Amino acid sequence: MYAITLVIQCPDKKGIIADVTSFVYEQKGNIQYIDQYVDRENGAFFMRLQAELDEQLCSYQNFVSLFENQLANGYNMTWSHQPLNYKPKMAVFVSKYDHCLYDLLGRFKSGELGVEIPFILSNHKDLDSIAKAFEIPFFHIPVTKETKATATKQQLALLKEHKVDFVVLARYMQIVPADLIEVYKNKIINIHHSFLPAFPGAKPYHSAFERGVKIIGATSHYVTEELDAGPIIEQGVAQVSHNHSVSQLIAKGRDLEKMVLANAVKHHVEKKVLVYGNKTVIFT
Amino acid sequence: MYAITLVIQCPDKKGIIADVTSFVYEQKGNIQYIDQYVDRENGAFFMRLQAELDEQLCSYQNFVSLFENQLANGYNMTWSHQPLNYKPKMAVFVSKYDHCLYDLLGRFKSGELGVEIPFILSNHKDLDSIAKAFEIPFFHIPVTKETKATATKQQLALLKEHKVDFVVLARYMQIVPADLIEVYKNKIINIHHSFLPAFPGAKPYHSAFERGVKIIGATSHYVTEELDAGPIIEQGVAQVSHNHSVSQLIAKGRDLEKMVLANAVKHHVEKKVLVYGNKTVIFT
Amino acid sequence: MYAITLVIQCPDKKGIIADVTSFVYEQKGNIQYIDQYVDRENGAFFMRLQAELDEQLCSYQNFVSLFENQLANGYNMTWSHQPLNYKPKMAVFVSKYDHCLYDLLGRFKSGELGVEIPFILSNHKDLDSIAKAFEIPFFHIPVTKETKATATKQQLALLKEHKVDFVVLARYMQIVPADLIEVYKNKIINIHHSFLPAFPGAKPYHSAFERGVKIIGATSHYVTEELDAGPIIEQGVAQVSHNHSVSQLIAKGRDLEKMVLANAVKHHVEKKVLVYGNKTVIFT
Amino acid sequence: MYAITLVIQCPDKKGIIADVTSFVYEQKGNIQYIDQYVDRENGAFFMRLQAELDEQLCSYQNFVSLFENQLANGYNMTWSHQPLNYKPKMAVFVSKYDHCLYDLLGRFKSGELGVEIPFILSNHKDLDSIAKAFEIPFFHIPVTKETKATATKQQLALLKEHKVDFVVLARYMQIVPADLIEVYKNKIINIHHSFLPAFPGAKPYHSAFERGVKIIGATSHYVTEELDAGPIIEQGVAQVSHNHSVSQLIAKGRDLEKMVLANAVKHHVEKKVLVYGNKTVIFT
Repeated sequence: MYAITLVIQCPDKKGIIADVTSFVYEQKGNIQYIDQYVDRENGAFFMRLQAELDEQLCSYQNFVSLFENQLANGYNMTWSHQPLNYKPKMAVFVSKYDHCLYDLLGRFKSGELGVEIPFILSNHKDLDSIAKAFEIPFFHIPVTKETKATATKQQLALLKEHKVDFVVLARYMQIVPADLIEVYKNKIINIHHSFLPAFPGAKPYHSAFERGVKIIGATSHYVTEELDAGPIIEQGVAQVSHNHSVSQLIAKGRDLEKMVLANAVKHHVEKKVLVYGNKTVIFT
Repeated sequence: MYAITLVIQCPDKKGIIADVTSFVYEQKGNIQYIDQYVDRENGAFFMRLQAELDEQLCSYQNFVSLFENQLANGYNMTWSHQPLNYKPKMAVFVSKYDHCLYDLLGRFKSGELGVEIPFILSNHKDLDSIAKAFEIPFFHIPVTKETKATATKQQLALLKEHKVDFVVLARYMQIVPADLIEVYKNKIINIHHSFLPAFPGAKPYHSAFERGVKIIGATSHYVTEELDAGPIIEQGVAQVSHNHSVSQLIAKGRDLEKMVLANAVKHHVEKKVLVYGNKTVIFT
Repeated sequence: MYAITLVIQCPDKKGIIADVTSFVYEQKGNIQYIDQYVDRENGAFFMRLQAELDEQLCSYQNFVSLFENQLANGYNMTWSHQPLNYKPKMAVFVSKYDHCLYDLLGRFKSGELGVEIPFILSNHKDLDSIAKAFEIPFFHIPVTKETKATATKQQLALLKEHKVDFVVLARYMQIVPADLIEVYKNKIINIHHSFLPAFPGAKPYHSAFERGVKIIGATSHYVTEELDAGPIIEQGVAQVSHNHSVSQLIAKGRDLEKMVLANAVKHHVEKKVLVYGNKTVIFT
Repeated sequence: MYAITLVIQCPDKKGIIADVTSFVYEQKGNIQYIDQYVDRENGAFFMRLQAELDEQLCSYQNFVSLFENQLANGYNMTWSHQPLNYKPKMAVFVSKYDHCLYDLLGRFKSGELGVEIPFILSNHKDLDSIAKAFEIPFFHIPVTKETKATATKQQLALLKEHKVDFVVLARYMQIVPADLIEVYKNKIINIHHSFLPAFPGAKPYHSAFERGVKIIGATSHYVTEELDAGPIIEQGVAQVSHNHSVSQLIAKGRDLEKMVLANAVKHHVEKKVLVYGNKTVIFT
């Protein structure tokens, strides 16, 4: 017995749910979860399906190629699949802030995330000791104006060598180069420390303080070339008051950042995030 | 063209989603929304499906009887259906508190609830003028130890006469008689002013104050014979502090009660609530 | 016995709390609530104080003039006062949306708001019947490019005639003229249907939908000449998903708007809002 | 210059705020924060005050003894004080669950908690390696029916030896012996994995699942002899649905437990928690 997760996008068409579910039934599969969504305005169909199958009756490879031929082609699907027990390889990029790193590593060690972490990468040496304490390789690749091109190459080489599936920017204070974004399209998860689109840019807590908002937020999104403008995966908020100084906003925001980033990572790992246009469908 | 909402419960069985969706497809229907849930532990299957069909190709009555014969019987389904544009008849029972009544009637007048309100019923005369202002018939049926049996009969007669589909207890401070519960099983919605199962009974805000909780709640549930123990439809909470007196808790709680009750009513009206055992599946 | 609420702003100075509280004590007053806040960066002091006094020992007028002479002048205070049982006169401006109006009037009738409502004013006739049902005078003042100047004069005349203390824009879809803002500085409360500063302008729910946010909000603020940029009083948020169409965002947002506006009104009525610069101190 | 935090409880009396603030002023002190609360029903007064003073004009010791003589005695105060920069010694008790421990240690290393951690103590060896990774001494004291008395003595000896100020039970799955509670009255912080008073006892997530609640919670409280009944410091909640299995409730609850416990610890460290009767006043 094995379980497979399918994620599908295609133009909406009458009968598609019946066809997909009947296909699984014909391979003697048992559907465990099925989520679907139709964007009526744009005529777009989205589905996430998890099914249990019998290796003897229909092997994983067989199922995948049958699906491709009998369904995916006809419906013009963009689709992907993953064995249920697969643990994606997640690289973590950091700078000097440690709270998101501690949070991710604590969850990782508790077995909560369902990933492998081949390495942590930073443009600074500060968090090396944390990586050591958690017994994870740490690579220090400084980024300056002069070394930027070389640094990108080194980063790409490391990601390739370790077969990294996706990257998490756990408060990585550098702009990700376009080359890297291209290779990892919708696979680089950032945490921005504001409720986007309010307060994009470098100092959102200062801006929030200036504006006198009563609620602050954090936003996790996929990285695109336009800064802080990628598809939003998860957002969280917390109440604040006049009584909070900028540094108290920052402190309060740390908890938001940790929680929002961790949830975004979990959704991504479980293939619950489908990107279309600049938005996401999240099947939770 | 017409749209139909189906709600299904039955023992889980391989192929059921394929069978149901294929059935709709065969009647030339288009599935607009589909939600399903499987309780693996108890082997129970739940589905809510909304489909658009063509009166010419398959009439509403035809669809329903085909579904009954080809699917419902074989799968041993408990199921129900409703035309999308149907407006259920909702009776509102009140006593002296007016905040939930004002909230429901405001939403009703705004066209937000999707119901008809044939009448408001109360054991007191206090809220008669509100009913008048909103131009809804008001019946005053006092309930005392002596008149209880007669009152129940009068209530049942009114409900029958006006073909009431479901009843909302908008802070109705009386225990609903068993006869009425039996006729309207899982069709009487109550709002309890606490986060059940904490603080059941008559004075939950006083109990919450005594215990020094930091969060208060409200719970909307279907009425069963056991007091405050029916299937929960919706719950809401709000933060409080030592600074709140009992009367401030009550004031803060009013907003919770209004919101939670209104949401429960909307879920019920849209047939998004499925009751099984003493719990609910809510397809939101 | 009477109770008085004082609200104070002034430059911060050592000993100010001692001086104010000692002053109340010397007039044989009993402090019931005291809230204070110091903006250290700008050296600004804020206080809200509620005290109970004996008319025989120190009359309201006497207390006020003693305070002015002994404290307010020396500390260079901006301050105001209000008897605890005073019910401010609140005018409500609306256009065609009725949900905030129903909510405010329901709360008003329940005795929750602590105000009088001398009239409702609208640029359309649509909501006249609601005013009638709640037995509140309704004035229809259409606003077109040509009539704008006349309309402003009529509005000002009505506000003056009814001695209105503050104005609530309950989804009033018109830009408030500068003349009116000047007369009612920090006394016109608006509800904006987004989490400002995200999505200012006319169609925030459409913008939120476009951006694919996972949380929507509503913001209540004092009206200033710059649109949607006045001091924020209260904000609220709600979770949404890809599953929400624009019209569902709008529906969900209505509850936010009602709640946020009602809370802002209550804070204002209880003199819990202090404006400084473009921000607010809220003593809750 | 030094800063001191005072925490005061006493019977309410007219003029007390004036007296306390004037006292600070007379010692040439500057009040930075002041919070007060009066329980009118029980005539109880509560205050937390943070002031900055000049060592030359009034030493810490001098301030404290003057306060005791001039104010505390006369007003019959229960009071305590702490230098602002004091880092209390916090012992952490754990069993086998690691999520709260990882969270606390991450925050500790980030410098967020403002404590020292002299040791971690457990009745099991499982979490020894985490203590090692964070370079904190770990003591393993097994607790069985037979060894309970000895274990308590060992625990008390360790706490005394390390001059521990307060104890955090980070999912310590043992009942704390009365001897220890007596010595650390209102100084042992527990995290209970439910929204108390709903679901006390050992398996709250299972009970929550059975009851079909739509919201789960976590509660941090001081440990008293009666199980799960001590004064509540902080509570947090999260929405759940029928879709959550017991194990998913447990997973979702972990985040609540971490957050709620961390907030309770911070409040305690900053002396923002005042216990009276079986309730708390929290000055946040």
